[in-house]
Amino acid sequence: MSYTTPDTAIRSAMIDRVKFNADGLITAIAQQHDTGEILMLAWMNAAALDETLRTGRVCYYSRSRGGLWRKGETSGQVQHLVDARLDCDRDAVLLLVDQTGVACHTGRRSCFYNALRPEGIVEITQPDVAAETLYGKG
Amino acid sequence: MSYTTPDTAIRSAMIDRVKFNADGLITAIAQQHDTGEILMLAWMNAAALDETLRTGRVCYYSRSRGGLWRKGETSGQVQHLVDARLDCDRDAVLLLVDQTGVACHTGRRSCFYNALRPEGIVEITQPDVAAETLYGKG
Repeated sequence: MSYTTPDTAIRSAMIDRVKFNADGLITAIAQQHDTGEILMLAWMNAAALDETLRTGRVCYYSRSRGGLWRKGETSGQVQHLVDARLDCDRDAVLLLVDQTGVACHTGRRSCFYNALRPEGIVEITQPDVAAETLYGKG
Repeated sequence: MSYTTPDTAIRSAMIDRVKFNADGLITAIAQQHDTGEILMLAWMNAAALDETLRTGRVCYYSRSRGGLWRKGETSGQVQHLVDARLDCDRDAVLLLVDQTGVACHTGRRSCFYNALRPEGIVEITQPDVAAETLYGKG
């Protein structure tokens, strides 16, 4: 399955149906399209969702920086969109993606590595790449 | 893999490390543990997360009703917990579950059935069971 960009009018009509919250955001889940692995959870505003649908490259909204967050722009760890699906309430979106490298800023493939186990919080994966390698040393 | 309940002290210590938002909530993703299918996205407060970890049956927090939402209590469509994993920021939790029946209140297995396609929003699945069957006719 490969992604095809909807035209501007279709994108606009689809985004009009999304229920953004009081801050203008929806929750976005990124899942590796072929393995089913959950990579990360982040947020999108209307502009981020439109850019993602237009370009086929995933763009989030960074709540900490207050602006668009083109995933992988600094690290090179981009997400190519395969399919996007709204839920029944249209206030969350599932992004099926092809992840280049790792999704997590810690250098792990997935952000969800802290398992809640009988012995406490257990890190079930280690970084595939050092964070310094992803983001430079300043 | 089967779920083992952490004891009270371990649960309490783990929940102390979770970063709940200003409303006291975290985002929760439910994924069918063996197929990787994303079932739904909902919210948990500390009490819901503790009940889930204690009982091995998933309990959310309903923002619309303002109280605990024991998934399947009315419909019988319960979620048995297999594993729970916090993300790197500890403000979202991935629940690997065994879903009885359907997760969505529309009678579909997954809530994420509205695909954003070149032709517009396309419903890619139909209900497996009528909502009236799940919730009665009042």
